[in-house]
Amino acid sequence: MKTEETKSETSSPTELIIKMAIKAWEIQNDRMNKVLDSLTDEDLLREIAPGKNRGIYLVGHLTAVSDNLLPLFDLGDGLYPQLGNLFVKIPDKSGVEFPTAAELRKYWSEVNAKLAHHFHAMQPNDWLAKHNAVSEEDFAKEPHRNKLNVLLNRTNHQSYHLGQLILLLNK
Amino acid sequence: MKTEETKSETSSPTELIIKMAIKAWEIQNDRMNKVLDSLTDEDLLREIAPGKNRGIYLVGHLTAVSDNLLPLFDLGDGLYPQLGNLFVKIPDKSGVEFPTAAELRKYWSEVNAKLAHHFHAMQPNDWLAKHNAVSEEDFAKEPHRNKLNVLLNRTNHQSYHLGQLILLLNK
Repeated sequence: MKTEETKSETSSPTELIIKMAIKAWEIQNDRMNKVLDSLTDEDLLREIAPGKNRGIYLVGHLTAVSDNLLPLFDLGDGLYPQLGNLFVKIPDKSGVEFPTAAELRKYWSEVNAKLAHHFHAMQPNDWLAKHNAVSEEDFAKEPHRNKLNVLLNRTNHQSYHLGQLILLLNK
Repeated sequence: MKTEETKSETSSPTELIIKMAIKAWEIQNDRMNKVLDSLTDEDLLREIAPGKNRGIYLVGHLTAVSDNLLPLFDLGDGLYPQLGNLFVKIPDKSGVEFPTAAELRKYWSEVNAKLAHHFHAMQPNDWLAKHNAVSEEDFAKEPHRNKLNVLLNRTNHQSYHLGQLILLLNK
């Protein structure tokens, strides 16, 4: 019995590190969810600093970038591919109509639930395989261009904008 | 010759992932250095948003947290341990005298040069070993509490504050 327990707790170093990276992603998501729960829809319409992006733009931007992980990781189509145009290519306050804060909150939750589902099913070999924006040829020379590397960078990206979104609290 | 070349380029999955994590740290450092180069000492005395931390506080804070990696990773004493009191325990604008922006730029560079030196010498086993804020007993049960995990979290932490510091640009 003891042996089995020990075995189930033991991961290879690679498995352990991948779990750490997924956990770091989840921590950022949890923090983001807490900040979103603390902000009203009206709060999200304010700029994070004078003349800078509004909260709603950052929520749309992060949702668009996360949604894009689905096709990038070969996990199917994005749920809301139209967000990539609105919140990545187009800057904030350019006169284009955006989804409402309530809609974006829903999209954010759905995209992250979908990603969480896939991330927990992915095996170490999946994480170390190439993503869809690199060719087989380039990947053979640059094996760091794998899905796990994208996850590390996207976690940092989310943290970067979370540091901005949090400025809307207690204002 | 070809075999040797191939061998030198081939890493184990664990080595590859550790290199990716160090690279992600370096990318954040490079971005931070570029932002610092673009900001004057006067810029750093402004608040990132009305009523929020000033740039100088964030530079001190990030330097203090990075400096603390030295003792945490058993790499010797911190270069500027006094910063931990000033920029972690004490909030900004509390009337305490801080080092100047010029001094903090110097400390930041020195701390990061020292860390870069150590990080490149560390082997996979070093990265997966426990850090100094966890006991042997707890580490045996929670092997994810290793140095690499701290690096992943500190990279996110740096990215979080970089997202704030960048708001001082073009203001």
